[in-house]
Amino acid sequence: MHSVVMIGSGNLATQLAIQLKKNKFLIKQVYSRNLTNAKSLASLLNTEYTNNLSKLFDADLTIIATKDSAIEEVLTKINSNSIVHTSGTTSLDIFENRFKNYGVIYPVQTFKKNIEIDFSKIPICVEASNKNFLSDLILLSKKLSEKVIKINSDQRKKIHLAAVFSCNFTNYLFTIAYEILENENIDFSILHPLIQKSIDNLKTNQPSKIQTGPAKRKDLNIINEHINLMSFKEYKEIYNLITDNIIKRNE
Amino acid sequence: MHSVVMIGSGNLATQLAIQLKKNKFLIKQVYSRNLTNAKSLASLLNTEYTNNLSKLFDADLTIIATKDSAIEEVLTKINSNSIVHTSGTTSLDIFENRFKNYGVIYPVQTFKKNIEIDFSKIPICVEASNKNFLSDLILLSKKLSEKVIKINSDQRKKIHLAAVFSCNFTNYLFTIAYEILENENIDFSILHPLIQKSIDNLKTNQPSKIQTGPAKRKDLNIINEHINLMSFKEYKEIYNLITDNIIKRNE
Repeated sequence: MHSVVMIGSGNLATQLAIQLKKNKFLIKQVYSRNLTNAKSLASLLNTEYTNNLSKLFDADLTIIATKDSAIEEVLTKINSNSIVHTSGTTSLDIFENRFKNYGVIYPVQTFKKNIEIDFSKIPICVEASNKNFLSDLILLSKKLSEKVIKINSDQRKKIHLAAVFSCNFTNYLFTIAYEILENENIDFSILHPLIQKSIDNLKTNQPSKIQTGPAKRKDLNIINEHINLMSFKEYKEIYNLITDNIIKRNE
Repeated sequence: MHSVVMIGSGNLATQLAIQLKKNKFLIKQVYSRNLTNAKSLASLLNTEYTNNLSKLFDADLTIIATKDSAIEEVLTKINSNSIVHTSGTTSLDIFENRFKNYGVIYPVQTFKKNIEIDFSKIPICVEASNKNFLSDLILLSKKLSEKVIKINSDQRKKIHLAAVFSCNFTNYLFTIAYEILENENIDFSILHPLIQKSIDNLKTNQPSKIQTGPAKRKDLNIINEHINLMSFKEYKEIYNLITDNIIKRNE
């Protein structure tokens, strides 16, 4: 596989296209619903663009890197011999009976359009409709990353679910922490070294083995004091639920 | 201040004593309830030890680095001109009417006995009963760290509460993510790059500004699919509560 048509112009589409080009793939064309976005990514890649799905070029591989809810509509409007999407949650089945070779390339990372990222350490999960196409996708992915993993749709959905807990939900807890400190005129950066250390510990330990804190110690005095320190019901609910769960686990 | 008596032989006591010694303070004596622990830390520091609070040496500063619940009992049994504790949650008031100079030195970090840690970037929160002693404590803390912050007991408690959300609770979410993946025979390390990237983003952005995920997008299809993927009630409860809160914030 050498030539690629990229459907989408968002964060992942942009970074994936940049990496493919860097690795000598030919990005023949970029599609986006929004012509300005299509043009902008195409000019970055020095290639063609369109906002019309009936005008897609032929290529060795068509990559759908749109948001999940747009995939189905795109599929009904295009022809391609070999096609993949990049979603964490959409099943491989979505392609069934429509294409000859179909698959998924799911990079387990969060992307920003404007921030180039080193792909070499990003795990890329690969899935395909047949063995030959799987080999093709693995070959392609290995040019981008050292960590290419063959998985199935169920596993991929679980990875995405685990990512929601590990990143989206933790970010929400950081939001609460930020607001608690902001209210006392304390800069959130006071927690950066502690947060980084906790993440470093996570890289060499199973998380359940390094759980610490008042809930882990079942220190009810501090737990009660904490609950009294919080003025928002929303904070208390989350504090109580997670604390109860940590306590239960240790009983 | 030059000479120190260290009360406690746990993770923080050990690392703090090591750093003080490195910075030319004289650790005159180590106390621990447990004689073996006292001896072990004392031999590391090449100093005296005891498990008897009535046999503490005089020193320029007595540091109580025990767990919170032990502080009160220690206080009733010792005499000292200048004393601090290192707790995130115990008030400065605990020393009132008992000592001349008293205060708090609270390093915002998690420690392990056996893992030496660079103190220079660790924020140290300082609080004291009077101006002169505060200056002394700031001077001492600045020898250990570049980030010394004068705070009051209320602020310190809020910092500790924010740390519980940012580290203890996030670790619990990592535990859930670990288990979800373990159940599919997927190694948790697949999420390490994503987690590290999320933390890196946090260092230059306010967390509420970088919230992503299905809840942020109010993508009810994926949210429902995620809920169906989870077999444990405990996971679902946390998923639902945090998701609802993220959705509410965006309405």
